[in-house]
Amino acid sequence: MSQAIKAVLFEESEIASIASELGTDSLMGKSLTSLIADTDAFMALGVEVPGHSEAGGYAHNRHKQNYQYINQAGRLFLVTGEEKYAQYTADLLLAYADKYLKLGFHEQLNTNPPGRLFHQILNEHVFLLNSSLGYSCIRHWLSAKQQQTIVAGLFQPMLDMFTEQYSFDFDRIHNHGIWAVAAVAICGLAIDKPEYVEMSIHGLKGDDIEGGYLAQISKLFAPSGYYMEGPYYHRYAIRPLCLFAETVHRHRPELDIFNFNDQVIGKTIKSMLATAYPNGVFPALNDASLSMDVCDAGVVVALSLYAKHYGIDDDILGMAQIQDCVWVNPCGQVLSAAFAKNQAKLTPCWPSVELNEGPNGDRGAQAFMRMQADNGDVNQLVMNYGQHGMGHGHFDTLGISFFNNGQEVLREYGFGRWVNVEPKFGGRYLDENKSYARQTIAHNAVAVDQQCQNNFDVKLADSRHGEPHFFSGDDSAVQGVSAFCRDFYPGVDQQRSVLMVNHGVLAKPVLVDLYRLISDQNHQYDYSLHYDGQIVRTNFDYQTHSELATLGDHFGYQHIWNVAQGKATTEASDTALVSWLQGSSYYTWLSAVSADDEVIFTRSGANDPSFNLRSEPGMVLRRQAKDTLFANVLETHGYFNEAVEASTEARGQITQVNVIGSNEQGSVIEIVAQDATLVVMVSNQVGVTPTTDNSVTFNNQTFQWQGYFAVEQRG
Amino acid sequence: MSQAIKAVLFEESEIASIASELGTDSLMGKSLTSLIADTDAFMALGVEVPGHSEAGGYAHNRHKQNYQYINQAGRLFLVTGEEKYAQYTADLLLAYADKYLKLGFHEQLNTNPPGRLFHQILNEHVFLLNSSLGYSCIRHWLSAKQQQTIVAGLFQPMLDMFTEQYSFDFDRIHNHGIWAVAAVAICGLAIDKPEYVEMSIHGLKGDDIEGGYLAQISKLFAPSGYYMEGPYYHRYAIRPLCLFAETVHRHRPELDIFNFNDQVIGKTIKSMLATAYPNGVFPALNDASLSMDVCDAGVVVALSLYAKHYGIDDDILGMAQIQDCVWVNPCGQVLSAAFAKNQAKLTPCWPSVELNEGPNGDRGAQAFMRMQADNGDVNQLVMNYGQHGMGHGHFDTLGISFFNNGQEVLREYGFGRWVNVEPKFGGRYLDENKSYARQTIAHNAVAVDQQCQNNFDVKLADSRHGEPHFFSGDDSAVQGVSAFCRDFYPGVDQQRSVLMVNHGVLAKPVLVDLYRLISDQNHQYDYSLHYDGQIVRTNFDYQTHSELATLGDHFGYQHIWNVAQGKATTEASDTALVSWLQGSSYYTWLSAVSADDEVIFTRSGANDPSFNLRSEPGMVLRRQAKDTLFANVLETHGYFNEAVEASTEARGQITQVNVIGSNEQGSVIEIVAQDATLVVMVSNQVGVTPTTDNSVTFNNQTFQWQGYFAVEQRG
Repeated sequence: MSQAIKAVLFEESEIASIASELGTDSLMGKSLTSLIADTDAFMALGVEVPGHSEAGGYAHNRHKQNYQYINQAGRLFLVTGEEKYAQYTADLLLAYADKYLKLGFHEQLNTNPPGRLFHQILNEHVFLLNSSLGYSCIRHWLSAKQQQTIVAGLFQPMLDMFTEQYSFDFDRIHNHGIWAVAAVAICGLAIDKPEYVEMSIHGLKGDDIEGGYLAQISKLFAPSGYYMEGPYYHRYAIRPLCLFAETVHRHRPELDIFNFNDQVIGKTIKSMLATAYPNGVFPALNDASLSMDVCDAGVVVALSLYAKHYGIDDDILGMAQIQDCVWVNPCGQVLSAAFAKNQAKLTPCWPSVELNEGPNGDRGAQAFMRMQADNGDVNQLVMNYGQHGMGHGHFDTLGISFFNNGQEVLREYGFGRWVNVEPKFGGRYLDENKSYARQTIAHNAVAVDQQCQNNFDVKLADSRHGEPHFFSGDDSAVQGVSAFCRDFYPGVDQQRSVLMVNHGVLAKPVLVDLYRLISDQNHQYDYSLHYDGQIVRTNFDYQTHSELATLGDHFGYQHIWNVAQGKATTEASDTALVSWLQGSSYYTWLSAVSADDEVIFTRSGANDPSFNLRSEPGMVLRRQAKDTLFANVLETHGYFNEAVEASTEARGQITQVNVIGSNEQGSVIEIVAQDATLVVMVSNQVGVTPTTDNSVTFNNQTFQWQGYFAVEQRG
Repeated sequence: MSQAIKAVLFEESEIASIASELGTDSLMGKSLTSLIADTDAFMALGVEVPGHSEAGGYAHNRHKQNYQYINQAGRLFLVTGEEKYAQYTADLLLAYADKYLKLGFHEQLNTNPPGRLFHQILNEHVFLLNSSLGYSCIRHWLSAKQQQTIVAGLFQPMLDMFTEQYSFDFDRIHNHGIWAVAAVAICGLAIDKPEYVEMSIHGLKGDDIEGGYLAQISKLFAPSGYYMEGPYYHRYAIRPLCLFAETVHRHRPELDIFNFNDQVIGKTIKSMLATAYPNGVFPALNDASLSMDVCDAGVVVALSLYAKHYGIDDDILGMAQIQDCVWVNPCGQVLSAAFAKNQAKLTPCWPSVELNEGPNGDRGAQAFMRMQADNGDVNQLVMNYGQHGMGHGHFDTLGISFFNNGQEVLREYGFGRWVNVEPKFGGRYLDENKSYARQTIAHNAVAVDQQCQNNFDVKLADSRHGEPHFFSGDDSAVQGVSAFCRDFYPGVDQQRSVLMVNHGVLAKPVLVDLYRLISDQNHQYDYSLHYDGQIVRTNFDYQTHSELATLGDHFGYQHIWNVAQGKATTEASDTALVSWLQGSSYYTWLSAVSADDEVIFTRSGANDPSFNLRSEPGMVLRRQAKDTLFANVLETHGYFNEAVEASTEARGQITQVNVIGSNEQGSVIEIVAQDATLVVMVSNQVGVTPTTDNSVTFNNQTFQWQGYFAVEQRG
């Protein structure tokens, strides 16, 4: 007991300061209260170290819980001084030390090598990282013999496995690699073996090139901080990244890690946070669940760390408000204090941002555009024109998603996976992830000739990327993004320009979506939208099928039912209109259509022999053309509350969308609302800048504007 | 100003007492705060009295808002003393007085006669009730001339319309009738015309038989207090019922209204509250939305009134907690004070109750059975074996619904209506309400020969009712309900017995559902369940169809897709098993099956030309038989949280359900779990009592038990 505390992430004075918040209602106080309640509840189950099971199975879950509670109980021993926490941490560690080497290796199930506790060593890395942190908190409380037992029976075998047996996996620039180096370094510090810290920071060869933390954080992220696999995998890597950063900061201060490489750590945390929807959920870019959010434990660590080392603003405080907790660490204390001081009402609205991709930032980008409605509600558009995202990539370049009123409106399907649901293929990725979820038609994009972008060839897709055309996200009245994607379908170039327009004649910001296809040959273009809720009305006739067939046989089409279809035009109108009700909002999609266009109402779930897919609605506007422009508007309107039986403005204000013209210079459309007509002009000139002069003439009418786009009111 | 206050529902001293809670955080204080914020926001829009529109249209909504805010602003003038509220109330009333007689009558759209403001006078009654209450709060503030103008231009014409022009609708024993009499009486008091009070209480003829409030509350409810149309319509009638009761109490104390007819008012409020699910939502019995809950304004009034006049217990306080407000009235103040005093943690769990139906309580019943799991979660079963429910009745006698973990698990479809959504047929009932929602197959029941109970004949159905067999709802380990339904399909008798069993070998209460069919002839029996979420696994093979056809052509079957089907038995097992994931819980249904049984996975939404139906999954266990017993178990197990990627116990503990035997004396089944086998014995003897001795012999094995049922552990 008289020994000095050796906790990797705490100084003694810091512990006392955190302890002073026990029982308070600061974010730190609340975090401690729930950490205690959670840990006590698990400790009541006793100590149990099981053998093997499938992912999602009992033993798998128990090992995951065990490392989590080794970490938590260790920290709580420091903060509360209660020995029961040290005892529990020690009991668990000693039980593992006794059993670990007796457990054989799992069978190898995927590309990740198997561990002794888990089917993939990735989980074993996580185990080492957490248990080392817990161990470091109680080490001074353990006898020398106990320390020896734990090191010899558990930590050293793990270190050997990771750095020798699986050394190929240790020196790897990959999000999994960050877990490996963070675990090995933190364990090295916890057991006084600095050589492990060195190899983790600088790689096995010590050259900062082929592996190690510094190489990883130099190469894994674009200059914007964006991580190419998307936020879902980013938030998984961010936790060891931050834990290791804080560790380096404390134990290798000479590296000045928070300023390393142009502050890459701060930049990548911020870029991850800036992708989140206003409710804190991450958009499901590439393989991702629809529910991963900023309350994830890794993001909690990241936000607290960012607050301490890079500063605090309203958006950071707004995120803390969603998290409703902080990291139980001196970093979290800084955020908690700032949050307590802030008296303003927080309506976080991260600035619109275009995050470039690729090591040099020249391989496309991801756009996150935000605009507030009069009532403060944040509308967010996400558009993907960056890289493919490797093995987890979806074939959805130029795909969009859209969020407002607390819900995703133009929806991502997410991954084809029931994560950790053991009877669903052990919770791993399912066949339908490839056959449906990753296909172009499963996204809000245009599928050409019933095929998938880049012919569903990952290697080909990884070699390409979208081309940013313009991005303008500062204005509160009109914002816009545009990008090209060339030859993702042979002989077809695509340009998508999406504007958010807040205009006096409209109740809420509307989305203007101009999707241009350019080809010498005739093609079938399927402009596809995925919504949720109930169709309220259309302005054209359609036929519901009394027997359902699929929309096609390949590229995801085999998983889609053709529920109903009809000609998109009517005698009265060349604008197709579909309204639906989702939650408490009405939405109306309007599109300029021509005589042979067809609208197909769809539902996913066909050819799904194990009910692996969700049954979700969508619609397709189908057109046969060479060059064409899909000109669409999405209006948000009205209010519905079934419980109190209230409904207002179930019909929107926009009645028509007309294409005035579109060519290589620009596209001009007209949006007719009840009280006014808006003319929207978008530049298609490659290389357009904010000062470029645009002039196009259609039907003897000339339209002129400066810069990327213009919105003008007529009548 | 020197005039005495003439408010119908307030004494001067009561106003001062309520005013003393302004700004406090009692339920009354919070109710006042939100009433003020809500009223101020609407007042900011100014005074507008529009003309006609469809239900759900702008004018319709505005008139509804106007009467609500006349009522609210009037009350707030009394409580706050601020003249702006009186002025606003007066401005609106005077505007109506000016315009009302200039508005022609609406077109008649349904059986309800049209009014001048609304398409049905029901809404006009509601207008009169609310505006009279508001008027009574500011009358002393108005000049005599203003009072005259309002009475002559608005109130008197309304009174004439209701009591003369539409007198046939005034004297009617019907839930709409309560609005009529309450409105006319309260208006009569507000304008000093006691003759209207008299005719409202005693009917136009004054005989308390053909009409009037006393006749209505004597005849509308069963002795149990149950209202035959179900909770959705009950909560609509409860508001005028309570407002009128409080009015009579204050102005005709000699009637001792709260003790009238064996306390029918208290009884019917309590029976309505006792139907609600643990989250406060009402089960959708008959035509009903899935979201109507105890926060409805009428239920708020009813709970406050009950608290003052009939007493307060933990369940009442628990409901107040869900409502998070009270009625701004002296009654609400009593509830608010009791709520503030209560320090205990509220986990409301209303006692299990069987509510009888019919004027004499002998026309079947509705069962509401509740059992708490170890963690306090309330499991609720609802079973219908009462009356049909007239024009709003569903053909679902012996149908059940089941709720736990905060969600409806065995689900009601609810009505075929998008209430107040103007583009959906003016928000009225849709064709699909008849063709699907009311049909037997749309419910959790057995449909025979692909038909509907009572051949979808309302008159025939109204002439019949279920027969209660037993109900036992006091025990915390086993509860049970059983009922018969004879000849609802020609030549077929049905008996359903549902038990909730909380047993040490099972994690949570399981539902045991024994559905017995009795016939001389061979029939097709479709045992149907409606679930939500994702199928996780089955223990039998099934084929998903690559083209979808409907399940049939009539009686709702035409709206159901046959998504997949398979033989229910396998070589390994005579128990069919289907597991699914809904929200954070896993559910496993197991059923004893025989060789020719088939399971069909379904989805609603076929032959739905206007997307009026929701697309929802279900399943059917299909059997050809004469006499048979469907023996089913529903196990709730495990936990899933996608956001934190946690999953436990995705497989349940029960592996088999075997029918040992079933005859007129009793049914005996065996439930095999991992750690034990339970034998469940249920008496089928007509007239069984808690002391009846039962003895049945199947396969030379004799089973004996006393009373309704027994559950015994073997092995």
